Amino acid sequence: MTADPTSHWGWGRADRFPDLDTRTALAGQLQAVLGIPGLPPEAPVALADVTLPASRLAVPAGLAAFTTDDREARVRHTYGRSYPDLVRGFRGDFASAPDLVARPRTEDEVVAAVRWASDHDVAVIPYGGGTSVVGGVEPVVGPRYAGTLTVDLRALDRVLEVDPVSRLARIQAGATGPVLEQQLAAHGLTLRHFPQSFEYATLGGWIATRAGGHFATLTTHIDDLVASLRVVAPTGVAQTRRLPASGAGPAPDRLWIGSEGTLGLITEAWMRVRPRPRWRSSASARFTAWSAAVAAVRALAQSGLHPANCRLLDRREALLHGVSFDGTDVLLLGFESADHPTEAAMARALAIVADHGGACPDGTTHRDDGAAAGHDGQAGTWRQAFFDGPYLQTAMVSMGVIVDTFETAVTWDRFDALHAGVVRAVRDAIVAVTGQKGFVSCRFTHVYPDGPAPYYTFVAAGARGEEIARWQAIKAAASDALIALGATITHHHAVGRRHQPWYRQERPELFARALAGARRSLDPKGVLNPGVLLADDEA
Amino acid sequence: MTADPTSHWGWGRADRFPDLDTRTALAGQLQAVLGIPGLPPEAPVALADVTLPASRLAVPAGLAAFTTDDREARVRHTYGRSYPDLVRGFRGDFASAPDLVARPRTEDEVVAAVRWASDHDVAVIPYGGGTSVVGGVEPVVGPRYAGTLTVDLRALDRVLEVDPVSRLARIQAGATGPVLEQQLAAHGLTLRHFPQSFEYATLGGWIATRAGGHFATLTTHIDDLVASLRVVAPTGVAQTRRLPASGAGPAPDRLWIGSEGTLGLITEAWMRVRPRPRWRSSASARFTAWSAAVAAVRALAQSGLHPANCRLLDRREALLHGVSFDGTDVLLLGFESADHPTEAAMARALAIVADHGGACPDGTTHRDDGAAAGHDGQAGTWRQAFFDGPYLQTAMVSMGVIVDTFETAVTWDRFDALHAGVVRAVRDAIVAVTGQKGFVSCRFTHVYPDGPAPYYTFVAAGARGEEIARWQAIKAAASDALIALGATITHHHAVGRRHQPWYRQERPELFARALAGARRSLDPKGVLNPGVLLADDEA
Repeated sequence: MTADPTSHWGWGRADRFPDLDTRTALAGQLQAVLGIPGLPPEAPVALADVTLPASRLAVPAGLAAFTTDDREARVRHTYGRSYPDLVRGFRGDFASAPDLVARPRTEDEVVAAVRWASDHDVAVIPYGGGTSVVGGVEPVVGPRYAGTLTVDLRALDRVLEVDPVSRLARIQAGATGPVLEQQLAAHGLTLRHFPQSFEYATLGGWIATRAGGHFATLTTHIDDLVASLRVVAPTGVAQTRRLPASGAGPAPDRLWIGSEGTLGLITEAWMRVRPRPRWRSSASARFTAWSAAVAAVRALAQSGLHPANCRLLDRREALLHGVSFDGTDVLLLGFESADHPTEAAMARALAIVADHGGACPDGTTHRDDGAAAGHDGQAGTWRQAFFDGPYLQTAMVSMGVIVDTFETAVTWDRFDALHAGVVRAVRDAIVAVTGQKGFVSCRFTHVYPDGPAPYYTFVAAGARGEEIARWQAIKAAASDALIALGATITHHHAVGRRHQPWYRQERPELFARALAGARRSLDPKGVLNPGVLLADDEA
Repeated sequence: MTADPTSHWGWGRADRFPDLDTRTALAGQLQAVLGIPGLPPEAPVALADVTLPASRLAVPAGLAAFTTDDREARVRHTYGRSYPDLVRGFRGDFASAPDLVARPRTEDEVVAAVRWASDHDVAVIPYGGGTSVVGGVEPVVGPRYAGTLTVDLRALDRVLEVDPVSRLARIQAGATGPVLEQQLAAHGLTLRHFPQSFEYATLGGWIATRAGGHFATLTTHIDDLVASLRVVAPTGVAQTRRLPASGAGPAPDRLWIGSEGTLGLITEAWMRVRPRPRWRSSASARFTAWSAAVAAVRALAQSGLHPANCRLLDRREALLHGVSFDGTDVLLLGFESADHPTEAAMARALAIVADHGGACPDGTTHRDDGAAAGHDGQAGTWRQAFFDGPYLQTAMVSMGVIVDTFETAVTWDRFDALHAGVVRAVRDAIVAVTGQKGFVSCRFTHVYPDGPAPYYTFVAAGARGEEIARWQAIKAAASDALIALGATITHHHAVGRRHQPWYRQERPELFARALAGARRSLDPKGVLNPGVLLADDEA
C-alpha cells in the first residue's frame, strides 16, 4: 500500500500546501489587496502527533476483510472540508473520529456493513470524497448509538456498463470525477459534471448531496443526469427502473437524490452521458453597473438560449479570481454543442448583453476542435482559480484568516433585496466579531428563468483559538439572512449537520414528517447518517 | 345555477355526442378503413334514468355550505374517462358513486373537509376535471371506510398572483386550462401546458398525475413547471418555498408531484409561465421506413436543439389523424421562441432528418407573428384530431367498439424490442378475445436524449356486454409487455387504480415502503384516495 498523497486535514494533495515563505507572501497580498491581516503562519499538527479517542467498537468478524479501526483511517475519515473542519484538523482535533472505517469492495459488503450496523445500533456514515462543507460526513451522532461506522465507497469505482445508443452509463458510486471520466473517455463519452470537488468527490456523494455541476442552465444539478439508482438500506436493496422519464407516481429517484445518506447508501447509478462538445463559443462581457449585469443575466436565463456557461462575477469576485482588475463586473458566457456550431446562439446572447450595456472588449472565441481541451481565455483563467480556491482556503487557515463561501438560490423578484440584505448581514457580522471590515464577493454559479443561484465568498480576520466561534457568528448571520429573505439555505452544498437549523425553517413541517416516515420504513433503527437533514427530535 | 353542458358519462360537452346518423356513418368508415365492424349504435342511459345506491353518509353540518348528497352531483363525480368508465357510464352503471360531493370555495373549506373525513374514516377522493383514464377518481376504496367524499376543487380557479419579473404565477389548483390561460393572458403570459385534457382538466390534477404537455422536449411534464406547492393533508397544510432551484434535501415538491391525492390535496401552486412565442418554425417530414424515422428522432433528441414539437406518427397513426394517406410515417417538427428566430434550429433539424432519409415535400413554415395563433399546416391538422380524439372514443363506445390508448417511455436501446413486443402482444390479445384482427398504431408524444415516450392506440371489435372483459384482456396484455420489456407503465397517464398491479412490478419495493411510511405520517388514518398507487395491503 502506497502512502496516501492527500492531506489528512486540508484540501486535496498534501504537497500542494504552500511552504512558510509562500504563505508569508500570501498574507502580505491579503493585507495589501483586501486589507485583512493574516496572523503569523503556523504549521499543522502532523498526522503522527494527532491523538484520538479509543474506538468504542471492535472490528466485527463478518466485516473484518474490509473494515478497520486503524488510527490513520479513522483520522482521515473524521471530517469533510468545511471551514471548521479545516481549523480543527489543522490543530490536530479529531475527537469525533469514527470508531470503525469500512471500505467495501462489493455491494454485498455494503449490505453486510449496513445490516451489521443496524443490528448493533451503530450509526452508518456514508463517505465518498470527504469533501462535504456542511458536516455531512462527520460522525457526530448523539448518545443513543453504540458507535459509528464510516463506510468509504471509493473501492466501488468502475464504469460497469455503457449504452451508447441511449447515451447512458452504469457507474459505481465510489468513482471520483477523474476516475469515471477516464473510463467514459474510452467510449468517447463524458458525464461533464465538474463541481469544484471534481477531483476528489464521488458520483454517489454528488447524487446524495445534489451537487451542482458544469452547466449554468438546464442540467445544473447532478439530479438531471440520473436515469436510475441502486441504494442499500437496512431493510433491503432498491433498484429503480432505467427510464428516460415516467409519470408513475412520485419519482423514486428524487426521494433518494439529496437524501444525504439518511435513506440508504447509493451503490451505483445509470447516468446520462454525452459525447464531448465539438463546437464552443465563449466571451466575457464587462458591466460598469451591477444592476445592468443582473438584468442581462436574467434576460439570458429567460431567452431559451441555454448557455452552458453563464457565470456572473461581481467586481470583487472578478478581482479575486484574476479575471478583471478595472472594477467591472464580468459575465463569462459560453455555448457548447456536439451537434452544431454555436455562433448563432452566442451572437443572440451578445445582442442581449449589449442591450443591457455590457461590453466585450476581448471579442468572442469560436472553436471547432473535436475532442481537444484547449484554452478558452478568461473562462479558463476563472476555471483554474475555481479549482485552486479550496487550496487557498486551506493555506489561509494556517494564517488564522477566516475564509469561506456559501451559496443559495432565489427568485429574480427577490434578488436585489436578498443580495443587499445578505451582504449587509455578513459585513455587519464581520465587523461585530472581528472589529474590522471584511471582504464579501458574489458570483452566480447557475441561472434559471425564475432566478439566479448566487454564491458568496467572505474573508475576515481571525484570532488564534477563536476562528470557529467567529466563523459561526458570520455563518449564522448569513444563513439567517438567506432564510428571512426568501432564499434557500443551499443551492448545491447540501444540508448536512451544519445547515440543519436553517433547513428546518425552509422546508415544510409536513415534508419533514414525510421524510421521517419514509426513513422509519427503510431504516427502522435510524442508523443511517443520523443528525443529517432531520435533527434527533425529528427522526 | 345553469344546467351543466358536459356529458354525465362521455367526454366533454354533451352536445358534441354525434347523432344516430353520424354515428352510423362513422361505423361504416371504421369498417371501410380499419376493417373493424361496429355494432348498431345505441343510446346512452339518460341521466334521469340512472339509479344510484343510497348515500351511506349524511351531509355533516360543518361542511353543509359546500357539500351535497345530490343525485346528479354523485353521478357526475363517479368516473373518470377511461374506456371502462365510458362503457359503464353509457350503460347507466354508477354503482361506485361517492356518498358525498364537496365543492370547497376556500382552502379552509378543503381543510375542514379533509379533517372531517379523517375523523370519521371517510375516504377522500380529490377531483379536478374528472378526466383520469386510470381510475384515479373512482371511489372504490375497500370495506374499511365509512363512505366516500369526493372533493371537487374546481371552485378554486383563480390566478392569485403574478410575478412578471421571475415569470411565475400563483394559481389555484381547480383552474382548468382555458380558465387559467385566460387569466394569464391578461398579463401577456401563458403556462403553455396543453395535454389532451386541456379543456377540462385542472392544474392540481395535472400536478397530482404528472401530466405531459405541449413541449416534446425539455419541459415535457408539468413537474418541470412547478416552482412551489400548497398541499392539504389531515395532519396540516404544507407550503413549499418558492425557489428557482434548491439542493436542500430531497426536493419536497417532487414527493407531492405524482402522488395522485394519496399524500394530500394540492390547493395551489406557483407555476413557471412565459410570454407567448413570437417566432415559430414548423415542418413535417415523411419517412418510408419506420426504423429510419426512429433513428432520425433519436438524433434530434440527442442534438441539443430542443424542438418544441417532435411528434413521430407511424403510418397508421398518420392515417387515423388525417395527416398522411400515402403509407409514410410522419414526423411533425416545430420550434418556437419568444426571444429569437427559429430558422437556424429548424435548418439543422431538417439536415438531421435528411441524413436519415426523411423528405419534406411541403417545405418549412417560418412565422414571426407576435401573439397570433394562426394556422400551422399538418401540425394544426394533427392538433385538431388530437383534441377531437376523446370525442371519437366516446362515439365508438355507443357502437360497441373497443378503442383505447396507452403510453409509456423506454430507453432507445430497448425501443425496437419493446415496440415489436407490445404491438404483437396487443394484436394477439385482440385476435384471442375478439376472433378477428384489430388495429394498433403508435406515435411518440415526447422524446428524450435517452429514449422516446411511445403512445399506442388500439381498436378492436366489441360485443354487447363483453366490452369491459375484452378491454381488460387487451389492456393486461399491453401492460404485461410494457413491464416485461423494460418500459414504464405510464409516461403521463398516471397510475390510479387501474395501473396499480403493474406499477407494483415497476417501482422498487423499498420505494413503496417509503411512500407508505410518508403516508402514515401525513395521513395516519389512510383516508386520502385509498387504493391509488399503493394497494390496500401496502398502505
